[in-house]
Amino acid sequence: MNAAAILLAAGLGTRMKSRLPKALHPIAGRPMLSHLIAACEGVFDRLVVVVGPDMPALERAAAPHATVVQAERLGTGHAALQAAPLLDGFAGDVAVLYADNPLISPATLRRLRAARGAEGGEGAGLALLAMRPEDPAKYGRVMQDGSGNVTRIIEYADATEAERAVGLCNAGVLCAPAADLFRWLRGVRNENRAGEYYLPDVVPLAVAEGKRVVAVEAPEAELRGINSRVELAAAEATVQQALRRAAMEGGATLTWPESVVFSHDTRLGQDVTVGPHVVFGPGVTVEDGAEIRAFSHLEGCVVRAGALVGPYARLRPGTDVGPAAHVGNFVELKNVALGQGAKANHLTYLGDASVGAGTNVGAGTITCNYDGFAKHRTEIGAGVFVGSHTTLIAPIALGDGAMTAAGSVLTRDVAPDALAFARARAAEKPGAAAAFRAARRKEKG
Amino acid sequence: MNAAAILLAAGLGTRMKSRLPKALHPIAGRPMLSHLIAACEGVFDRLVVVVGPDMPALERAAAPHATVVQAERLGTGHAALQAAPLLDGFAGDVAVLYADNPLISPATLRRLRAARGAEGGEGAGLALLAMRPEDPAKYGRVMQDGSGNVTRIIEYADATEAERAVGLCNAGVLCAPAADLFRWLRGVRNENRAGEYYLPDVVPLAVAEGKRVVAVEAPEAELRGINSRVELAAAEATVQQALRRAAMEGGATLTWPESVVFSHDTRLGQDVTVGPHVVFGPGVTVEDGAEIRAFSHLEGCVVRAGALVGPYARLRPGTDVGPAAHVGNFVELKNVALGQGAKANHLTYLGDASVGAGTNVGAGTITCNYDGFAKHRTEIGAGVFVGSHTTLIAPIALGDGAMTAAGSVLTRDVAPDALAFARARAAEKPGAAAAFRAARRKEKG
Amino acid sequence: MNAAAILLAAGLGTRMKSRLPKALHPIAGRPMLSHLIAACEGVFDRLVVVVGPDMPALERAAAPHATVVQAERLGTGHAALQAAPLLDGFAGDVAVLYADNPLISPATLRRLRAARGAEGGEGAGLALLAMRPEDPAKYGRVMQDGSGNVTRIIEYADATEAERAVGLCNAGVLCAPAADLFRWLRGVRNENRAGEYYLPDVVPLAVAEGKRVVAVEAPEAELRGINSRVELAAAEATVQQALRRAAMEGGATLTWPESVVFSHDTRLGQDVTVGPHVVFGPGVTVEDGAEIRAFSHLEGCVVRAGALVGPYARLRPGTDVGPAAHVGNFVELKNVALGQGAKANHLTYLGDASVGAGTNVGAGTITCNYDGFAKHRTEIGAGVFVGSHTTLIAPIALGDGAMTAAGSVLTRDVAPDALAFARARAAEKPGAAAAFRAARRKEKG
Repeated sequence: MNAAAILLAAGLGTRMKSRLPKALHPIAGRPMLSHLIAACEGVFDRLVVVVGPDMPALERAAAPHATVVQAERLGTGHAALQAAPLLDGFAGDVAVLYADNPLISPATLRRLRAARGAEGGEGAGLALLAMRPEDPAKYGRVMQDGSGNVTRIIEYADATEAERAVGLCNAGVLCAPAADLFRWLRGVRNENRAGEYYLPDVVPLAVAEGKRVVAVEAPEAELRGINSRVELAAAEATVQQALRRAAMEGGATLTWPESVVFSHDTRLGQDVTVGPHVVFGPGVTVEDGAEIRAFSHLEGCVVRAGALVGPYARLRPGTDVGPAAHVGNFVELKNVALGQGAKANHLTYLGDASVGAGTNVGAGTITCNYDGFAKHRTEIGAGVFVGSHTTLIAPIALGDGAMTAAGSVLTRDVAPDALAFARARAAEKPGAAAAFRAARRKEKG
Repeated sequence: MNAAAILLAAGLGTRMKSRLPKALHPIAGRPMLSHLIAACEGVFDRLVVVVGPDMPALERAAAPHATVVQAERLGTGHAALQAAPLLDGFAGDVAVLYADNPLISPATLRRLRAARGAEGGEGAGLALLAMRPEDPAKYGRVMQDGSGNVTRIIEYADATEAERAVGLCNAGVLCAPAADLFRWLRGVRNENRAGEYYLPDVVPLAVAEGKRVVAVEAPEAELRGINSRVELAAAEATVQQALRRAAMEGGATLTWPESVVFSHDTRLGQDVTVGPHVVFGPGVTVEDGAEIRAFSHLEGCVVRAGALVGPYARLRPGTDVGPAAHVGNFVELKNVALGQGAKANHLTYLGDASVGAGTNVGAGTITCNYDGFAKHRTEIGAGVFVGSHTTLIAPIALGDGAMTAAGSVLTRDVAPDALAFARARAAEKPGAAAAFRAARRKEKG
Repeated sequence: MNAAAILLAAGLGTRMKSRLPKALHPIAGRPMLSHLIAACEGVFDRLVVVVGPDMPALERAAAPHATVVQAERLGTGHAALQAAPLLDGFAGDVAVLYADNPLISPATLRRLRAARGAEGGEGAGLALLAMRPEDPAKYGRVMQDGSGNVTRIIEYADATEAERAVGLCNAGVLCAPAADLFRWLRGVRNENRAGEYYLPDVVPLAVAEGKRVVAVEAPEAELRGINSRVELAAAEATVQQALRRAAMEGGATLTWPESVVFSHDTRLGQDVTVGPHVVFGPGVTVEDGAEIRAFSHLEGCVVRAGALVGPYARLRPGTDVGPAAHVGNFVELKNVALGQGAKANHLTYLGDASVGAGTNVGAGTITCNYDGFAKHRTEIGAGVFVGSHTTLIAPIALGDGAMTAAGSVLTRDVAPDALAFARARAAEKPGAAAAFRAARRKEKG
């Protein structure tokens, strides 16, 4: 049976105190909405994202999934109902989820679907997710009858002492056949203080129709809402902890796991060593046996087997550090292919460049890839020796086996095996330093 | 009614194992004494700081408040009494506080004052601060009668089992009318093992005079003493945690709060993003929407709205990063005004300089602001293109729209829209690199 | 009485998912085996390390202690027995320890030896280490009779509910007279599921001979085994915590202890300040009053009294930063002796160099110590002023009091007090920058 998910992402997130829509705040380098979409994609066949007005960035983040704009903020029930036209005639189940609940796992979503009804089986008329939070105070309570079926959800404000003593709380996520769900949503009333249409109010309507309503329990960590930056930071910590553990269990050594920041998609090979204070942005792959030393910052790059990176290396997008290559301290590589065994070890900036196998890039080398208007490429061959403080003004190519004299500024290609140099004649003025000092001291009185 | 505070700061802090007076050890970039002074300034009208002999740095930290030297170390009661001459004839209340209790809040101090006696009201003859520490073992216990008035303080060593079971502990801080306090202080005896005059010994003297003595409870976190570097680090952690939370609640995103170090006075605007591993020294303001990336180190600077700083940027005092300006990796700015939208993105040192709007400072640019004797200024106009590896020997000015050729060393001003260059002619020796390698290989055998 | 220790280090550490032998995984910059050896060296007279086949790096780490190869993996009892030939005729006690229990303290080892038998005393026939782990589930239980003597070890799988309720668990480490131990080891059978010879099976043999067997309790933190990278990280955290506390108690200020990574052998003097995010590799000594600022990375170096290092300083092996010298941001020193009060403050690489007292090394200075074949030295005298962007092509020497002009590339020695320069003449093309921009804009359409 097909199933669809409606993802509610229209929230402004007033408590975030941000101009960024709440669902775009990132966790482990990925917007909350994208986390939720990723969890849903393997479980649901269709996704519809409900956004607020004027949230083009959010619509882009939702792509390729359909989006619909909730023009007025009239509550979660109203928001879910906006998806009805896009799911018109949809025959399967529909679940409703929240972008500020982004840590929900595919396993939990599958359990929700299964509880609603197995292929051809009986199932329940409505399944909802529930949790037993450490501090249940603010949540609505899930009331069950003797056989465990849900009878109703009682908001905390309306609950008696006895009802408040119930530990099972409503997480808000639910799943029902499309036609039922939308019929109930259309029946929800807004006769409450806020004048809003609340999603949980479909529960009594289902019960009233004699449907069986079941609660699926899931861990609080998956269902805890993110409404403030403090809660966002707590979610980030939870995710980072899981990523660190997964990296170690996969065979990477993290010298000091608590100081490493991963992206949701960081991939580390076996016997990779990651030193303390390393930051991974999105899109990084580190192959077997490579070492990433302290204070390195990587994003959008590949580090091949046995390579040595850092400390203080910054690898920017489009960079490919070849097998057994070395990238040392205070070195920035942007869109650079560094060949096997090549080295760029000190105080260097390479941008839009290729470097051949075995080439040594001296300290203080700079590629001038930008002329104020456009970017140009630098092609350095194999077995090249780039002298220290070489300035390479792109576009430029150094042939295999070439050398450049330290301190040279080069604007033209260098032939293979040739030595290029551009250096002023050195001279010495005997005693001039002493004379300069004497004069300056005199000036200063 | 006026009130004064005596701040006891004469302690050597033997357990700190430091040559620095204990009260000068910093928390969140500010000496303990300064934290206490800041808490007191809004609550008390006059402050007197009691220092030890030969502590000129401490006297400077106390300024503009009065200081008095406790020449002999004869106990806290003796220390407080040293302030008497400076408060001669003072008609209001006097509180006694400790520099190694620097985390006490103004709210707690106001509660202490109010308990001593509201303007024109009855109040108590003596008010003291008390706490209920998690581990009360070492503290003196506060004994109260049936109506909650304090009857006496019992030192732990002198307490019976029943008395030790009392959870309310003396924090040492107290407040009384000036004349009473100094009279009692003069009455304190030193008939104890250490031969010292103890401040809490004023309590029985007040009780003996029939005064009502009241205890004001405050959180242990505010009153816990700092006597060792381990305790100092714990206090630092407490303060950092509070600063991180306040930053987030104020609308800043901290990707990974636990890795950010704040100064007590760091100011972050709305939607500021602070990456992992960022250190703020004193005097930093970051305006709305600016981003501070990983591994950046800022002190004494302003980052304007929408600017982008780091990773690995070091901003030193006197720096003003303009709106939407960029400061990139391995870049150090000292006393630099960077104009709107200007960029200094790679491996650059700018010192004592101004950079105009929209100017691009190429990789590896260095201002030579120091000639071994004095500092000189570099003035770079707007819309300038500074080529990579440019060396600017100050004093020097580059006019608006000027360009410098990469690798140039410039000692003279450059006119607006002019191109300055200082570059040796490049040449190439065909095959010379191959020949060099052959010769070196031969040498090596 | 002499005593020997057999250190079992043959484990592959399958759960580590590593090609590195388990015993070589480091904690605080030192292999697990080396930690264990260091703990044993003060307690035992002879050490024999049992390694697996093809583990040459492990044999090197064991040196100068004897190693023996366990050719087949037939269990811990079999492994210990491999040491028998090397201890043939040894008259004292022999203890058996595990390289994956590297945090055991010398004090615990001494208690084990003492329990086995004091010099000339009665002692026990066999002493073993036991612990009461927080979660005892998987461990074998130590059964004792009424007088506390061990009667047997029951593996968890074989234990009844009542036996499992016993909290005292076998840590595996034991000590007995050499002749007894090896006789028992030869008597151990491998009639179990794995077909292995287990070390704890000597216990029933000792009991059967009427020997008294005693259990010595030690903290779980010392005896917890390290079998996975997650457990390795936990051990690292334990060790780092102890090192941080010891540093603070020794009189160093750690601004933010949790962000500092120590090596097992880091030595900090009194009133040393270590900023946040500092990494110490092996072999670092920092003398009194020196300051190591944020984001610095030190290994194999000495920082003398009052020196100032960082932020972002990288000190590599062989470096000696002189008294009151300064090493600033983005500066790398490798095998450099920096004289008293000398400064290298910005974006500099010095390798294989000496720098005299009071010398100022300008921003962007680079020593070219490597010509692609060999390393050469740079000798800079005292009171030298090295201009910014100076390139020093080694071997080269700058005499005392010399100066170099900014931007110079120098290949020859400079005499004392002389000024060396190598600089192209600067020129200016009026309006050329404006013309360039106009042309480029036209090109771009």
